[in-house]
Amino acid sequence: MRQAGRYMPEYRAVRARRGFLELCKDPDAAAEVTVRAVERLGVDAAIIFADILLIVEPMGVQLEFSEGDGPVLHNPVRTPADVARLPDGDAAAAVGFVYEAVRKARAALKVPLIGFSGAPFTLASYVVEGGGSRTYAHTKTLMYGDPEAWHALMRRLSTAVIGYLNGQIAAGAHAVQLFDSWVGCLAPDDYERFVLPHMRTVISAITPGVPVIHFGTGTAGLLELMRQAGGQVIGLDWRVDLAAGWQRVGYDFAIQGNLDPLVLLAPRDEIRAQAARVLDRGRDHRGHIFNLGHGIVPQTPVDHVVALVDMVHEMSSR
Amino acid sequence: MRQAGRYMPEYRAVRARRGFLELCKDPDAAAEVTVRAVERLGVDAAIIFADILLIVEPMGVQLEFSEGDGPVLHNPVRTPADVARLPDGDAAAAVGFVYEAVRKARAALKVPLIGFSGAPFTLASYVVEGGGSRTYAHTKTLMYGDPEAWHALMRRLSTAVIGYLNGQIAAGAHAVQLFDSWVGCLAPDDYERFVLPHMRTVISAITPGVPVIHFGTGTAGLLELMRQAGGQVIGLDWRVDLAAGWQRVGYDFAIQGNLDPLVLLAPRDEIRAQAARVLDRGRDHRGHIFNLGHGIVPQTPVDHVVALVDMVHEMSSR
Repeated sequence: MRQAGRYMPEYRAVRARRGFLELCKDPDAAAEVTVRAVERLGVDAAIIFADILLIVEPMGVQLEFSEGDGPVLHNPVRTPADVARLPDGDAAAAVGFVYEAVRKARAALKVPLIGFSGAPFTLASYVVEGGGSRTYAHTKTLMYGDPEAWHALMRRLSTAVIGYLNGQIAAGAHAVQLFDSWVGCLAPDDYERFVLPHMRTVISAITPGVPVIHFGTGTAGLLELMRQAGGQVIGLDWRVDLAAGWQRVGYDFAIQGNLDPLVLLAPRDEIRAQAARVLDRGRDHRGHIFNLGHGIVPQTPVDHVVALVDMVHEMSSR
Repeated sequence: MRQAGRYMPEYRAVRARRGFLELCKDPDAAAEVTVRAVERLGVDAAIIFADILLIVEPMGVQLEFSEGDGPVLHNPVRTPADVARLPDGDAAAAVGFVYEAVRKARAALKVPLIGFSGAPFTLASYVVEGGGSRTYAHTKTLMYGDPEAWHALMRRLSTAVIGYLNGQIAAGAHAVQLFDSWVGCLAPDDYERFVLPHMRTVISAITPGVPVIHFGTGTAGLLELMRQAGGQVIGLDWRVDLAAGWQRVGYDFAIQGNLDPLVLLAPRDEIRAQAARVLDRGRDHRGHIFNLGHGIVPQTPVDHVVALVDMVHEMSSR
């Protein structure tokens, strides 16, 4: 959950010398910040440093990251004609720099490496809105107003995501995570109709034997449907009780989560109490992966993250 | 759910002649837009036109509405000292213009009138952040870092909210709604510890016999706890299936909801299908109040809202 990021001086030092996209596209630098984060934090697995939107850039989207404002996509895809105009090329073949970063990070790491991609809905929301959104008005307008064009867009994105994740696996990723970060903006019936079929397609096409972690935020109303998408692990954010969420997902899945990342701004006693609670809620069944429920925020003290990792190691070895 | 708002030409005409706060503080104008919305839409109940932040202004917060950017509170309350410095006066006594608007609207309406207030957590989040937020970092920092000051702030807000809602009831409101719009950013355990006791206090102090509607968004992980706060109706947003949510809340509560307001941007066939689905999910038990799951967005065609009201009347009379 944003292991390497602005909260970390080691990251800021590497980042200071270049733009964000430039960093993502430099395999040496991306591998370096990936590995440094693991060294600094002492976590049990690494996640490759990348951005979820890298895979949409080769689809003809003009991507820009402005400081503080998040991503801007200058030519949003909003109409059936926009969808039809998307270039035919193999997007996954155009992001070799990510596979190279995976290769380099894997060679330098002593812990497992997780590859990742945005999930089709979340990628679609950026591509249609042209950036972040509170209401997802353009996305839902396309979805409700022209379901055929919507599904065509989702198929295009799904094909890209499959190639992208399998490319990372071929380069050495031990597991892959699908970030459907904004899918929690959908009603369950809309998820079932507009998203679930594509998630099934993507997950079933991942290289056999490689665990798939299926993550979203605000998904407390979607868990039973996310289960139907397949995979091995469901990631929960903090807005659902871990024990209650796991029961709804089913114990044949592993569960990842679910500490509120804002708890890392709290005093250490509070961090410990909250981490203990999460561990306790995951104790009764096999396969709880302790994690934050979403990304670390920039103002987080690195020492608090290190302390959390130590606490979890200490408490879960008892 | 924002019956009178920017999407409506009748509202924009009244609004064009004055600022947003000025409109809120003019009982004749506030009553007028309330009544006109009901006349235009044909809904079965009115909700008084007001803003959830009116009640915090008399607490010493400098409130400003800038076009497009939402509310800005110029002197956020972030430290125990800030909380201690809040003025002692009776905030509910300082918003007589709202009671006057309720009186005037009630006199002009042929349908029941709903009064409302922001709930203490949502008000606290604005007061602490100084506006809207994605992460609620300042709010959670105060909550985790200084629980005593947090609870003191929540007590102050609860007292104000109780007086405010009972003032609206005394002026003629038939029911009241508590908008805990942003409480869905909390983990269930944090809700239980930092919010639930105050919601119990507020709801139990409402004038007996007056129905309380308890609404939030992103609350799919909080429903069992919201039940514990009391009241007669729980409002659901669209991110949870209405039938599943009602089962978790319990059938001794009525349920309000839960169409995604963005569906109003869809073609009419889609609006009808989605409204039918919501009605269907609420059919098996007594006390479903059809509503949107959150506020109408400005780009919504008024004709679609009118059509939705007609469809619901037609389909629920069968």
